[in-house]
Amino acid sequence: FDEAASRAAYARQAELTKPAGALGQLEDISARLAGVFGEPTPDPRGAAVIVCVGDHEVTREGVSAYPSEVTPAMVNAFLSGHAAVNAIARSVNASVTILNVGVATTLAPHPSLVNAPVRLGARNIRVESAMTRSETLRAVLLGADVARSAVEGGADLLVAGEMGIGNTTPAAAVTARLLRLSPEAVTGRGTGIDDERWTRKVEVVEAALSRGASSADDPMEVLADLGGFEIAAMVGVMLQGAACRKAVILDGFVEGAAALVAARLAPNFQAFLFAAGLCAERGHRAQLNALTLSPMFDLGLRLGEGTGGALAVPLLRAAAATLREMRTFAEAGIPR
Amino acid sequence: FDEAASRAAYARQAELTKPAGALGQLEDISARLAGVFGEPTPDPRGAAVIVCVGDHEVTREGVSAYPSEVTPAMVNAFLSGHAAVNAIARSVNASVTILNVGVATTLAPHPSLVNAPVRLGARNIRVESAMTRSETLRAVLLGADVARSAVEGGADLLVAGEMGIGNTTPAAAVTARLLRLSPEAVTGRGTGIDDERWTRKVEVVEAALSRGASSADDPMEVLADLGGFEIAAMVGVMLQGAACRKAVILDGFVEGAAALVAARLAPNFQAFLFAAGLCAERGHRAQLNALTLSPMFDLGLRLGEGTGGALAVPLLRAAAATLREMRTFAEAGIPR
Repeated sequence: FDEAASRAAYARQAELTKPAGALGQLEDISARLAGVFGEPTPDPRGAAVIVCVGDHEVTREGVSAYPSEVTPAMVNAFLSGHAAVNAIARSVNASVTILNVGVATTLAPHPSLVNAPVRLGARNIRVESAMTRSETLRAVLLGADVARSAVEGGADLLVAGEMGIGNTTPAAAVTARLLRLSPEAVTGRGTGIDDERWTRKVEVVEAALSRGASSADDPMEVLADLGGFEIAAMVGVMLQGAACRKAVILDGFVEGAAALVAARLAPNFQAFLFAAGLCAERGHRAQLNALTLSPMFDLGLRLGEGTGGALAVPLLRAAAATLREMRTFAEAGIPR
Repeated sequence: FDEAASRAAYARQAELTKPAGALGQLEDISARLAGVFGEPTPDPRGAAVIVCVGDHEVTREGVSAYPSEVTPAMVNAFLSGHAAVNAIARSVNASVTILNVGVATTLAPHPSLVNAPVRLGARNIRVESAMTRSETLRAVLLGADVARSAVEGGADLLVAGEMGIGNTTPAAAVTARLLRLSPEAVTGRGTGIDDERWTRKVEVVEAALSRGASSADDPMEVLADLGGFEIAAMVGVMLQGAACRKAVILDGFVEGAAALVAARLAPNFQAFLFAAGLCAERGHRAQLNALTLSPMFDLGLRLGEGTGGALAVPLLRAAAATLREMRTFAEAGIPR
């Protein structure tokens, strides 16, 4: 992160033809983008959404409103270009890549699918660790690989998205452990479960945490113990994005769990991270607070897939455009 | 407004491949767009920002941090393409047209300028009505004309923006009268005035209201008495946009005053109005509440010009894209 470029951008914002601070949070975003891209007038253009997909044996515990069969069906929807993330990404001129790191069924090849399952679903975190250390590392590296390809393909803005029936349960467990919060505080309604199922979900998160297999001080251990393959892959996407000095856009709650892990692994990572919307899933606000991020909007999204992240793409482009294309009072010859 | 199309859009949102309601406010926006455009799968593309510009003799009272000379200088900035609204509009593929309805100095012709001053500045509202009835009507009709041209040029999404040193003072007066609120409740910091100047501004708004020249029951009278030329022109832009069955995007506080007038003049107008961001200027929340609108984002913008409205353009396009390009569970063959 280029602090000098960021400071130069802040200084320029103060001189542009508008009252000081009148562009609000957009000014901070623009200056952070300057730091990310290492130049006072950044020009982020290409945007890529990487949807990481995996299943979770914890769905056996009745934590989700949908069965695991929906995961491969949604992958087909993504590949056909007709899911929410496709529609939104197209409208903001962002690419969509699907990364299968752990769907429970075998998927047919497809040009838009990176088909590299580490295992056919993460293990049931109520009774055992989701992944081994080496499985976890493989999923992280797969995410990093896809992110590198996206960057090589011209992506300046990277959105890590996800899909995987049941994955708000491991995301809640990871968040609870890393932030030392209670299961109730971070367990939400996911795809829309009722009170009874929510109580069960909290119990499952509680049981997973009670196994005590991971220490909050070892983020990779927490990820392996309580996470899942698509969460691990998103950690890789995010860390690679930051390593390539690109802006990483944070979308929803499951993505937030990955961001918490990434932030623990790489202290400077947060500087490259931009929060899109405030997700309606309980626990997202606690994640953003821990990451010291302010969301750009609050539209009540709770879908994941990278939909919120894709919506933020034009806002980041616009913020950068103000730095790049506006003139200062002096340049424009306007009295102040 | 086509209620049937809107209902059909809501019904379709409930069947699309996502948990019910998971796209949050985006679903409501999409269904409202369906009602505006009279089809269940709307496709709003072209976007136009119309920046209405005028001056205010009330600046003599010391209500603004900037002198009136800044107004024509900012017009030049708009015409050169280097102001905030230009940068943001370009980044979202929206056109920008400048409408001079009341700048205090004579402006040179320019291809992007509709140069039609009704008067060289609105009168000092502390001591007299800002405009005569006929001047007001001319400004409204000029705004309507420019909006019609924009629609004929392909605009589906219309942003009424404004610039005019001193114009948060008349906007506060119009808002206070129409909403029957105190001057303190709706008078903000504008371009960034200090406490002393703010106290003076409140006194000026109070004095304008005390003249008692307009009744809250006659919105055109309130507009003429307490408003200004660019506010009147925005009323015309907004009403014409709705009359042409296009979506009108509401930006900031001065725009909000125009929207209140428009809503009083045309009962069905609000159905065509979409609130972009929550503006940082005091009184904007009260305007949105009166218009029963929820803002899409809160980025602390307080610039006007149509900047917030332009930022909302990609969000509206994305909302419509979900209706148009997503498939239902049945269409996609996904179990639910």
